[in-house]
Amino acid sequence: MTAKVALATSNEGKRAELAPLLEDLDIELVLPDSNLMNEIEEPGLTFIENALIKARAVSAHTQLPAIADDSGLSVNALGGKPGIHSARYAGSPSNAARNNEKLLAALSEVPDEERKASFQCVLVYLRQSDDPVPLVGVGSWAGEILREPRGTQGFGYDPLFFVPGLNRTAAELSTVEKNGISHRARAAEQLLKKLKDDFR
Amino acid sequence: MTAKVALATSNEGKRAELAPLLEDLDIELVLPDSNLMNEIEEPGLTFIENALIKARAVSAHTQLPAIADDSGLSVNALGGKPGIHSARYAGSPSNAARNNEKLLAALSEVPDEERKASFQCVLVYLRQSDDPVPLVGVGSWAGEILREPRGTQGFGYDPLFFVPGLNRTAAELSTVEKNGISHRARAAEQLLKKLKDDFR
Repeated sequence: MTAKVALATSNEGKRAELAPLLEDLDIELVLPDSNLMNEIEEPGLTFIENALIKARAVSAHTQLPAIADDSGLSVNALGGKPGIHSARYAGSPSNAARNNEKLLAALSEVPDEERKASFQCVLVYLRQSDDPVPLVGVGSWAGEILREPRGTQGFGYDPLFFVPGLNRTAAELSTVEKNGISHRARAAEQLLKKLKDDFR
Repeated sequence: MTAKVALATSNEGKRAELAPLLEDLDIELVLPDSNLMNEIEEPGLTFIENALIKARAVSAHTQLPAIADDSGLSVNALGGKPGIHSARYAGSPSNAARNNEKLLAALSEVPDEERKASFQCVLVYLRQSDDPVPLVGVGSWAGEILREPRGTQGFGYDPLFFVPGLNRTAAELSTVEKNGISHRARAAEQLLKKLKDDFR
């Protein structure tokens, strides 16, 4: 029997990436109301705590197991910022264009060789809202911050995130390409291994 | 240079087990004042959240990186209890003898074949108190709950935790033996792999 699992995100981009990554499992992803997601505060100080807060709220509301993602961009020259504040870096509600502008401004004086950054992703799975032993997958993706956006795919900081090995930004990769190497792909891979014991 | 790392526990048993497990690293473990540890509340709903809360408090107080352990016993017939409440199952302050008595009472009617349980351990490492990407190790250890305590080593629920493969309880194992197979050993092994990038 196909099990229902709630996916605790209202971010279209995350949803579009996660769905194929979780395709191997015999689960039906249920999307919670975006109003619910907007109401969830994220007071955690780590990606994993914020992911757990989101998964727990959605699991309590839907009475289903829940998967949540928390992710962000960590820029070396900014001491790891915007980090857990990536989505709302330029204020609330989250706006990718304004976030990218703020990032470019913050790095305007930073020379090319000091623009290293990484995307971080934590995925969690709670069997129920009070599950004390969540399954966790983590992943990171190394790159550099450009001086202007390139590409139209992906979401968030993708147009500024240049991947030297590919000579392209994350926004110049198709979802399939991005899903081969991204922080989210690696986190999903780890989570998937652990979920397979539960779901097939 | 040997780096100092605070170990966020006032539990002698955990300390005695963790020190040799972390011996491979070029770090000096610093033990915080037990008053500080007693003051830290653990409102988290998962082992990992409670471990992060402890590590964060100790890192903020000592201005050092911090390692914390959160662990507990999950009993199948009790729906996973005492779980994150293992240390204070029979009330505060933590008392192993009273916890064991309460567990035996709760399982008095449960037949032998339904007394399966597991120890769970999460170890976290925070580079600083606001580190958004902690290193995490998790481990579990499967066993069964006896009807009376056996053995004098270890701590906590060890005298009731029977390991079928060894035909002994956790309290009948030396620290060296326990450290070969326990939940804490596996979590430490995972954390160690990740820490080695930072410390040697």
